[in-house]
Parts: sequence; structure tokens; C-alpha cells
Amino acid sequence: MTNRPRIALTLGDPAGVGPELAAKVIANPDNRRKAQILVLADRDEIDAGLRQAGLAMPPVGADLEDGIVILDDSSAPTSGIPAATESAQAGARALHQLRRAVALVQAGDADAIVFAPLNKTSLHLAGMTHEDELRWFADELGFAGTTSELNVLDGLWTARVTSHVGIEAVAQLVTKDRVIAAIDLLHAVLADSGIAAPRIGVAALNPHNGENGIFGRHEIDEIRPAVADARARGLDVTGPLPSDTIFLQRDQFDGIVTMYHDQGQIAMKLLGFDGGVTVQGGLPVIIATPAHGTAFDIVGKKRANVASMQNAFDIAVSVAASRLMRR
Amino acid sequence: MTNRPRIALTLGDPAGVGPELAAKVIANPDNRRKAQILVLADRDEIDAGLRQAGLAMPPVGADLEDGIVILDDSSAPTSGIPAATESAQAGARALHQLRRAVALVQAGDADAIVFAPLNKTSLHLAGMTHEDELRWFADELGFAGTTSELNVLDGLWTARVTSHVGIEAVAQLVTKDRVIAAIDLLHAVLADSGIAAPRIGVAALNPHNGENGIFGRHEIDEIRPAVADARARGLDVTGPLPSDTIFLQRDQFDGIVTMYHDQGQIAMKLLGFDGGVTVQGGLPVIIATPAHGTAFDIVGKKRANVASMQNAFDIAVSVAASRLMRR
Repeated sequence: MTNRPRIALTLGDPAGVGPELAAKVIANPDNRRKAQILVLADRDEIDAGLRQAGLAMPPVGADLEDGIVILDDSSAPTSGIPAATESAQAGARALHQLRRAVALVQAGDADAIVFAPLNKTSLHLAGMTHEDELRWFADELGFAGTTSELNVLDGLWTARVTSHVGIEAVAQLVTKDRVIAAIDLLHAVLADSGIAAPRIGVAALNPHNGENGIFGRHEIDEIRPAVADARARGLDVTGPLPSDTIFLQRDQFDGIVTMYHDQGQIAMKLLGFDGGVTVQGGLPVIIATPAHGTAFDIVGKKRANVASMQNAFDIAVSVAASRLMRR
Repeated sequence: MTNRPRIALTLGDPAGVGPELAAKVIANPDNRRKAQILVLADRDEIDAGLRQAGLAMPPVGADLEDGIVILDDSSAPTSGIPAATESAQAGARALHQLRRAVALVQAGDADAIVFAPLNKTSLHLAGMTHEDELRWFADELGFAGTTSELNVLDGLWTARVTSHVGIEAVAQLVTKDRVIAAIDLLHAVLADSGIAAPRIGVAALNPHNGENGIFGRHEIDEIRPAVADARARGLDVTGPLPSDTIFLQRDQFDGIVTMYHDQGQIAMKLLGFDGGVTVQGGLPVIIATPAHGTAFDIVGKKRANVASMQNAFDIAVSVAASRLMRR
């Protein structure tokens, strides 16, 4: 057998497009050759996803060169989960399989996790109290280090110094130490993905790069010293660069560190709404998911675009394979 | 003679690509048919711009259907202005012609102003103390009302509630009254440009549209009431909308109000760096200029792209013509 990375795959929220997207991933023989896919779902659920996608069940069996493994624990609720809407049942089902995926990784039986889109309301209805999946995963893994949601599109990775906070709170959180932590996190994941000397650009906080201090001193007092610190440690880091043009220079970078949520997301969503991937950055295991949501409006209509899900799968495979090679 | 709007045109900073761009505008017979172009420059300067562009002098004369008018006051400095660099001479030359353009409009002898790119450093070397051209024009015109730099690309206009301030200062400046003022300013200029019922979208300030107040209350306390106020007055205004997707919905709007500089500029520069136009919004006269700068690196290389300058000219002509029709 080849040394394929083992990808734990969950269907995400069962009421959304997740099962259809997961079906498209496992039905693609290229994907099964690239990785051993461990599907955390009952066989009925996988069948339903394949029907939604109009696809046939792929070969099943851990001993097959292109087979998937179905980790069916017969736990699917017998009463149907309401389709295309939020519900506690849907959230609970999604969380159950994510927990199993984490356990699989912790037991050394999987190398990475890919999950189809979740619905935040359903997760909260099911009792998840965390603000986002990243914090939930960190908790499940017992991980207390620096984390950052990473957004990936066409090979460009972005990390954020601040994320889910109001604009009012952003400036005080942009400190030299936090900028360094974001640079280091992004550098580590890029290196992990097999890039020998990742090129990282760092965005300014204020308009016109602060205009020499006239529009704010964070560029001078915090960001520039953080970049200098990283460079002194041999990292290929450039910045701060004006945030309204840094994404026009994206060919020069493998990753960009942004200072706040919308600074990166305005650009990334304009650059490609359909292919984006979110990586739960900083965790000891690579966990990737499509950047889009459950798309309740197109559930069951065979219209779900697999691009982001495929990209999430590819990123997980590539980072996991690169880690395996270095062992 | 046709009732063409009269456009006062200046070459901008003489050390930059302005003279070449202005030459391309006046050499295009379509432009001369659309408007009577009053060029504020000495004939030698126009000749030099035409040479840089590799173009011939168009017909000259106010009585010609397609002629330009050259308002040569023999004021060009006899010692050469250093090319492709900042200098006090270049700044002074640019300001001299802008002052004449303002005087022309105030005397009722021109309907709009279009100027080629300026260089901020040269303007400051020449003694301009204003933070930007918008404030300079407001001062020259003795105008004390609300103004906003407007950015225009492919028919989409953006206005800002805050502009050249640090992120730290943004939140406190986003008040209901200021949002209303920005909406009204944008509505007025769109109506002025001939759009009967302008459709305006308003961006949120905070990520995820404030996530129901969790990431900040400006959406609830300031922006939503401002939108409601405008709607109550019959304006077609929608918002607040998440700032990382509002530009994906741009087909639904004639204009978008952003809360801070980079929120709009990140999007607009990604959507089209080469065609953007800046309009000095709120002033009693329409004043337009390319969104890009003096591009010292390509001066004299015949590589200056006229797209933004042409768009600036077209916007000035269209607003001025629409005003003339309503007289």
C-alpha cells in the first residue's frame, strides 16, 4: 500500500449541503488515491449524500488502493433531521462526528480532519457555547497556545491579528507581541505545508500605512518592530504595507497577515467567493473546511459547488503528506 | 453651436504622467465633441504632453465644433521643472492652474473641473498646508458644508463616513448624523449625475455586521437608525450590510457608503486599479481626477494608462451635462 495520509472526513451539518459536498469528494477517484478517506458517518447518511449528488458509492475497504473507510457507529437519529433549516438535532449530529474525528486524530489513527459546513445556530441549539469552531477544537484538543482562523484561496494564506471583535477594540489589540504571534503561526503552517521559505506580507492597520504616524502610530510602534523581529530570526517577512494595495501584490507572498477581520475578508471574498477554505490555524492537527456555510437555499438541488470543499480536502492532504514525509 | 458642457482641464503635476494623460484626453475627438475643453496650461506645456503621448495638437478655437481652448497665461517657469520627482516648482505649477480653474468656475465660465494627478509632497513643498485636495478646494471655494472624497469605478460610487483618520478614531466618528450626511451627499451626487432614484447600500462597521451587537453596537445604535431616517425621506437605501460581502452585491447599488477608508478602498482597488476616479464630493462644482498618482516611474515612457483620466473626464462631462439640462 502507498503511504497515503489518512483524512478524517465529516459531513458537517446534515441539514445543509455538507453531505452532498462530502459525497462529491469521496466519489472522485483522484481524492481516494491521494488519501485514505475515513468517513465519520453512518452508511445511510453517506448514501443520502450520494443520492443528493447523483453519484454512486465508491469502493469501500481499508485494503483497497482507492477505497474509502466508513466508520459507521450506527448512531444516526432514527427520527429524521429537518432538512435545510437550523435544529438542535442537526447541530448535535455534526458535533458527534467532529468529536469522533478529534478522538481519531488523538489516537493516532488519522492525520488530518476535513469537515463540511456547519451551522452556528444549530451548534448553539445543540449546546455548543464556544464563539466559533476554532475555540471548540482547541478545547477538545486541550490546546492552550496561539490560534488564528486562516483563510486560504488560490494558494494564498491569510492570518489575522484580531478576529471576532468590534472595530472599536481592534487598535488596542494590535501589539508587537500579537503581530509576532500571527506571523509565526502563519510561517509555521506554511512551512508545514511544504513551502521551504514562506514569503509573508504584513498589512498596515491604518489608512495610507499610517501616513508616517499622522493617521496612527501602530505601524511605527508595533507592526514595524514585529516585522523586524521576525526578519532578525531569518523569516522572509515584508511590511507593514498599505492594506488597500497589499492584496494587489499577492503574487509576491505565500501568506498575508491582516490586522482585523474585514481587512482580509473584504479582499478574499472579492478574489474568489467560491473556492475559499478556512483552516483552524495553530492547532497541533491540520483541520480544514470550506469558507462558505450550509447554503440551506440550495440543499437537495444538485447545485452545491464542490470547489471550496475540494480545496479544503487538498490542503489537508498536502499538509498531512508533507508532515508524514518529514517524520 | 451645441450646448456642450465646458470642462476646465489642468495637467496636474507637471513632473508626473499628468501632461501625457491630459494630451490623450484632448487628442481624442470624441472628448472634444462631448465637451468644450478649456485647457489651463501654456501652449508649450501642452506641446510637451502631446510629444510624450506621441500625439498631434488638436484643432484650437472656441468657435470650432471639435476644438479645444488653450488658456495660456504665459506663466510657465522658464527654468525647467525637474521631471519624475517631487519639487516645490512642480507643486506650485499645479496649484497655480487649479486656482485658475476654480476662478473660471466661480466666474461662470466653466461647468466642471478635471485635473490630472497631483503629488502630495510637491504640493506641500509649494506651501499647501491642507491635508488633501478636497479641503483645499473647499477652502478655495469658500465652502463650509459636508464633503467626502468619492471613489468611482465602473459606475459604482462610494462615499465614506470617515476618511483620513486612524482605525482607533473610527468608531467614535461613526454616528447616526454622520452616516446620514454621507448617505445624503452620495444621493445628491448620484441624482446630480442623472440617476432618477439612486440605489444606495450602506456597509456595517464591525465584522459579521456586528453579529447582533456582540461585536459592537454601531450597527444597531447608529447605522440602522441612519438608514431608517433616509428611507423615511423616500431614499432607496439598504443596510447595514456586512462589509466583506457588500461589494459582491454591487450590481444592486449605484452607490455604497463605507464607514472607513480601507473598507471601501480594499474593494475598489481590487475591482479595478486602472479605471478608478476620485470625485471631490459635496462641493457646489463637480471636480474629478484619476484615483492613481503621478506614477513617476513611467514618466516619458508612453506607458501611462489613460483609463482613469478618461473616466474622470466622462464623469465630469456627464454630471455637468445633466446639470445643464435641468437648468
